[in-house]
Amino acid sequence: MTSDAHARPTGNAAEPLYDITVATPTHAERARTLVAGTSTGTLCTIAIEPAGYPYGSFVTVAFDGGNPVFLISALAEHTHNLERDARASLLVAESGSDDPLANGRVTMLGECRRVGAAAAAELTGAREAFLAVHPNARYYAGFRDFAFWKLRVDAVRYIGGYGRMSWVPTAEWHAAQPDPLGPSAAAIIAHMNADHADALVLYCTAFSKARDISSAAMTGIDRYGFEMSARTGEGPRPIRVAFPHPVTTAEDARAALIAMLDEARTRRS
Amino acid sequence: MTSDAHARPTGNAAEPLYDITVATPTHAERARTLVAGTSTGTLCTIAIEPAGYPYGSFVTVAFDGGNPVFLISALAEHTHNLERDARASLLVAESGSDDPLANGRVTMLGECRRVGAAAAAELTGAREAFLAVHPNARYYAGFRDFAFWKLRVDAVRYIGGYGRMSWVPTAEWHAAQPDPLGPSAAAIIAHMNADHADALVLYCTAFSKARDISSAAMTGIDRYGFEMSARTGEGPRPIRVAFPHPVTTAEDARAALIAMLDEARTRRS
Repeated sequence: MTSDAHARPTGNAAEPLYDITVATPTHAERARTLVAGTSTGTLCTIAIEPAGYPYGSFVTVAFDGGNPVFLISALAEHTHNLERDARASLLVAESGSDDPLANGRVTMLGECRRVGAAAAAELTGAREAFLAVHPNARYYAGFRDFAFWKLRVDAVRYIGGYGRMSWVPTAEWHAAQPDPLGPSAAAIIAHMNADHADALVLYCTAFSKARDISSAAMTGIDRYGFEMSARTGEGPRPIRVAFPHPVTTAEDARAALIAMLDEARTRRS
Repeated sequence: MTSDAHARPTGNAAEPLYDITVATPTHAERARTLVAGTSTGTLCTIAIEPAGYPYGSFVTVAFDGGNPVFLISALAEHTHNLERDARASLLVAESGSDDPLANGRVTMLGECRRVGAAAAAELTGAREAFLAVHPNARYYAGFRDFAFWKLRVDAVRYIGGYGRMSWVPTAEWHAAQPDPLGPSAAAIIAHMNADHADALVLYCTAFSKARDISSAAMTGIDRYGFEMSARTGEGPRPIRVAFPHPVTTAEDARAALIAMLDEARTRRS
């Protein structure tokens, strides 16, 4: 008997050091945050030639809500394919980790169609969303053969790294908001690890069951809280701590981190 | 009338400063070189659910000759898809340029099937090719649910950046060899631009029609020669110069560059 889908040795899984019911982003929120931070991906279409094969092509992309928007040429293979069969998917992948399979990725499936001039408001939305992310595309947005296309997302597969994956319910995908800390998370994490190593240890001891901690590194931060890797006598252990309430800006997060440090010091004394 | 497929204004295209029939890598060679330098890509399969949709997923990859090899789990969506329908493609894309559409990419299409234990030599080849590029995969290569799969390339679409694209004849793809300078090209280019700016100007004036050159930067190097961007009175102009004969190692390339510098100095004096 194994408890692991990949049939790895089980060993004795250690008890978590934190309350695992603590507020955490949903997969819909994680996936929307991931794609909001990316501007390129792989568009998958059904090829005309060789007929019926799935065809992957590199594209630049932006998001109009939860739907990917493209500015593509009528001369391109993927566009020929979509004109014949609208079924498509877009894969967007994070980079960052040295282990490529530890990075997150999202596959969005649905029909991808040209946004016609008749749908004026939709076209304006698509254009604005795309050019906000790809300002240099203004240069070719006016070429006769280029048009905006939108993939209406109907199914979403999210893989957040090892062991974190699901089909995200489509309604949740469209309702979710990208994390407001998305664009600033990397800088906050770098700052906390460089300048506030002591605070990270205090958070761990005050807000988790961890006791003997020689050091701790922040590994993630989002609107609901933050994650650390704590060095314990039994090796590195993950600890997640929630903010008292969700934050909406990087400045909010900073204030919450300072307030929680005060609270941690109070508990210790 | 326009001479450009994208219907851009034509202007007066300047006459090339170099012999455009100079030895140059074929698209097959460029594409094989590109994929040889990459270890991840997007695998496109035909989804079971939503049925018939093209499904893009992130994969690690290696190349056994011209065929991509994967080590994938029977639990993964793409594997379920391939078990039902072997038609697949793999998109591999370069990074590097700040302009994402200036980077090269290759789509390889064909049937992707599990390499069974019965095909012992093929399995050994696939395993060795994969583990040479992904040594850490040894850790899970032995899991029961993981197996090696190979995409037998039947069609190849190459896009080398703006205006350089073609369907590569399949026989050429399989016969071509990745450029031997591929792994060292970036270092050679950086070295030439950092330490041999004068030599680059000399190459341009000795081996092209360019005369008034204030500076030149190396932009590419391959077994057949190298490319520069020369700053002229009319702005930057591309210049390609061939080696006297194809080189096979970085050391060869270095010797050829030195010999050509001597030749350039002789011509000038």
